[in-house]
Amino acid sequence: MKDQTVIPGLDGVIATETDVSYLDVEQEEIVIKGYDLIELSEKITYIELAHLLFEGTLPNKEEEAKFESALKKEYALPDEFLSIYNNLPKDMNAMDALRTGISALGSFDPLLEDRSTSANREKSLRLLAKIPNIVANSYHKLTGATPVEPREDLPFSSNFLYMITGKVPTALEAEIFDQSLMVYSEHEMPNSTFTARVIASTQADIYGAYTGAVASLKGSLHGGANEAVMYLLLEGKTVDGLETLLFEKLKNKERIMGFGHRVYMKKMDPRATLMKKALKRLAKDRGREDLVEMCQRGEDILREEKGLYPNLDYYAAPVYYLLNIPIPLYTPVFFAARAVGLGAHVIEQHDNNRLYRPRVKYTGPRNLHP
Amino acid sequence: MKDQTVIPGLDGVIATETDVSYLDVEQEEIVIKGYDLIELSEKITYIELAHLLFEGTLPNKEEEAKFESALKKEYALPDEFLSIYNNLPKDMNAMDALRTGISALGSFDPLLEDRSTSANREKSLRLLAKIPNIVANSYHKLTGATPVEPREDLPFSSNFLYMITGKVPTALEAEIFDQSLMVYSEHEMPNSTFTARVIASTQADIYGAYTGAVASLKGSLHGGANEAVMYLLLEGKTVDGLETLLFEKLKNKERIMGFGHRVYMKKMDPRATLMKKALKRLAKDRGREDLVEMCQRGEDILREEKGLYPNLDYYAAPVYYLLNIPIPLYTPVFFAARAVGLGAHVIEQHDNNRLYRPRVKYTGPRNLHP
Ligand SMILES: CC(C)(COP(=O)(O)OP(=O)(O)OC[C@H]1O[C@@H](n2cnc3c(N)ncnc32)[C@H](O)[C@@H]1OP(=O)(O)O)[C@@H](O)C(=O)NCCC(=O)NCCS
Ligand SMILES: CC(C)(COP(=O)(O)OP(=O)(O)OC[C@H]1O[C@@H](n2cnc3c(N)ncnc32)[C@H](O)[C@@H]1OP(=O)(O)O)[C@@H](O)C(=O)NCCC(=O)NCCS
Repeated sequence: MKDQTVIPGLDGVIATETDVSYLDVEQEEIVIKGYDLIELSEKITYIELAHLLFEGTLPNKEEEAKFESALKKEYALPDEFLSIYNNLPKDMNAMDALRTGISALGSFDPLLEDRSTSANREKSLRLLAKIPNIVANSYHKLTGATPVEPREDLPFSSNFLYMITGKVPTALEAEIFDQSLMVYSEHEMPNSTFTARVIASTQADIYGAYTGAVASLKGSLHGGANEAVMYLLLEGKTVDGLETLLFEKLKNKERIMGFGHRVYMKKMDPRATLMKKALKRLAKDRGREDLVEMCQRGEDILREEKGLYPNLDYYAAPVYYLLNIPIPLYTPVFFAARAVGLGAHVIEQHDNNRLYRPRVKYTGPRNLHP
Repeated sequence: MKDQTVIPGLDGVIATETDVSYLDVEQEEIVIKGYDLIELSEKITYIELAHLLFEGTLPNKEEEAKFESALKKEYALPDEFLSIYNNLPKDMNAMDALRTGISALGSFDPLLEDRSTSANREKSLRLLAKIPNIVANSYHKLTGATPVEPREDLPFSSNFLYMITGKVPTALEAEIFDQSLMVYSEHEMPNSTFTARVIASTQADIYGAYTGAVASLKGSLHGGANEAVMYLLLEGKTVDGLETLLFEKLKNKERIMGFGHRVYMKKMDPRATLMKKALKRLAKDRGREDLVEMCQRGEDILREEKGLYPNLDYYAAPVYYLLNIPIPLYTPVFFAARAVGLGAHVIEQHDNNRLYRPRVKYTGPRNLHP
């Protein structure tokens, strides 16, 4: 009889080798292909980071231009693609719209069933290019607005924000949105990345792996937290209002979204620190310093009362609010950013595969007969 | 520093407690809620098994009638639902059609965001009722055939086969198809069930969990194997042809689909034994004993050459062939059968949750700077 110890949530289990990324808690570093994610987020752009994750190296100017232009060629969705939303409920959840869209998109890809490294790279690039279009325009379709065509004259992330809001972002907005995509881009083995690798390990295709990852990211314990944080801040309304609300929730033993993390439970998520800085700049520009104050009070309360620290979602939410992104799109935008990490992981899984298939500890009855 | 041992494929890791099912390799028993799956498959019907998995007990006649009539009330798809396939490629993979369909279906369910036990039960029942309709009719839609409306006067599984083939099955066909659904219904913690539980653990909804499970089941190392087996048998054509083909593949070190299993690697899958019996009866009825002979030769070769034994997919494939199920629907039918097991697992996961979030062993470079 083998060891029958259950490991709830696979806490601490080493599920795979990877050269994509690593959370080094001791050094307080999020390692991405050898680089510190926070340093990268302050020094390079999302497109350079995408190149690092897909090609393994930071691009020189020429490589970067080539990579971005390859992406731009893939912006367009298949003709009639957005019509699938005509037959779906207008009030459908935006993550469900994205999940359905990515699932459907696979069947338009001639390389769908090719799992070679080169085909997977090409498909990852295509997904990276098209997901922002699906995120923005499935939302416009469902809310009865006019779809916004991608604009190739804008940088990648500016175009993404432009497709969402219909307005070309200012330099500050563009910079901060690009940085938010970087901090969301890759984070070792969170539930959604694990989902994608588990699915890919059956030799299922990359679109299926991404579809499963969207399903996972929707959950409130994962990506869904950024939307929940914003609803919390809006419900709190003021610094004192938020304080009252948080104490009430703590009294009722409710989980507070935007706090806590399996890996760095006792420290502040370094990505949150970066988004906090971004929030301060943006709030100053908008005359919304009250939002910063509110978030700070919430941070203080959770630290003092529960010893819990903010995670990325806590500070990304108010940033997206000030960037005029509709709240239902916060998690889809998170997913779009994560597409670069997912691509790298699925490629690695297919290149060096073993089927994921754990066991269980059975707690039910035995020896019954019909 | 924690133990850094990688466990490829989570082989042998106990990922959860469960009272749903258990593979007892020593006793050679597939335990479903305390019962032996093989004994159940010979004595009861799929609907009784579904009741066992959802309600925890085998139904008496009255409970069974009530359960089946509740299912029948949920057969219909939302108006216009099948129109989503109008805008999708006619040659799309049937598992991709199913994945997209289940993903889309969630947004029509008023209980979508309710994770209570009772809501999850109701949604599992709805999914069980509607998945056969999506499987059969997305296929008809895409192949340009007329959708076949479900018939409430037929038993559940007869109606499923009827919607696929357009013909009311004979008593023998109905019995064998029902039995095939039973052996496919539930099997502890295969990749697709694990995928569903991993997704559900973020508090994502049950439709997302099933969508991810379809993505997983599509892979050739998992559910996709049953279709691959049929293409192999058809390519072999005759007993001798199959022999030549298998030796060629073995020489090229190719994996032979329909053989091997993580858990019972050194024994024949007991479900395969049952389907082998079913194949013999059906082949006799059809005058296709040559198929039985082919399968037997394949079985002998793999045992002698590689010490590998057939799994369920190896014998389910020719059974589905003789039941006139189009090959691209073998894996979707497998998924439809598995819906009862998945429902039980997602309910259990939401009722007693911990987020799945493993770690990695990082093998890339360190200390790079942009
Ligand atoms: C992210 C998260 C799921 C990590 O969880 P985990 O490693 O599985 O930890 P657990 O869920 O087992 O929680 C451990 C303990 O901390 C508490 N805790 C963790 N996060 C909490 C939060 N945000 N609010 C209140 N309590 C929290 C739990 O209630 C639990 O307490 P208990 O042992 O008394 O029951 C968890 O911190 C959480 O739910 N956070 C809120 C959702 C969120 O912001 N997600 C985005 C993550 S980037
Ligand atoms: C089901 C399956 C993935 C289980 O795999 P696993 O526990 O991860 O085992 P591995 O893939 O690590 O295989 C172990 C060894 O057996 C060999 N093997 C396993 N199944 C094999 C098969 N069907 N044909 C040829 N060799 C096979 C592997 O090549 C490997 O040999 P190696 O150690 O010399 O490389 C595997 O048996 C398989 O791929 N079967 C074919 C697909 C199939 O029928 N799937 C349906 C399962 S219900």
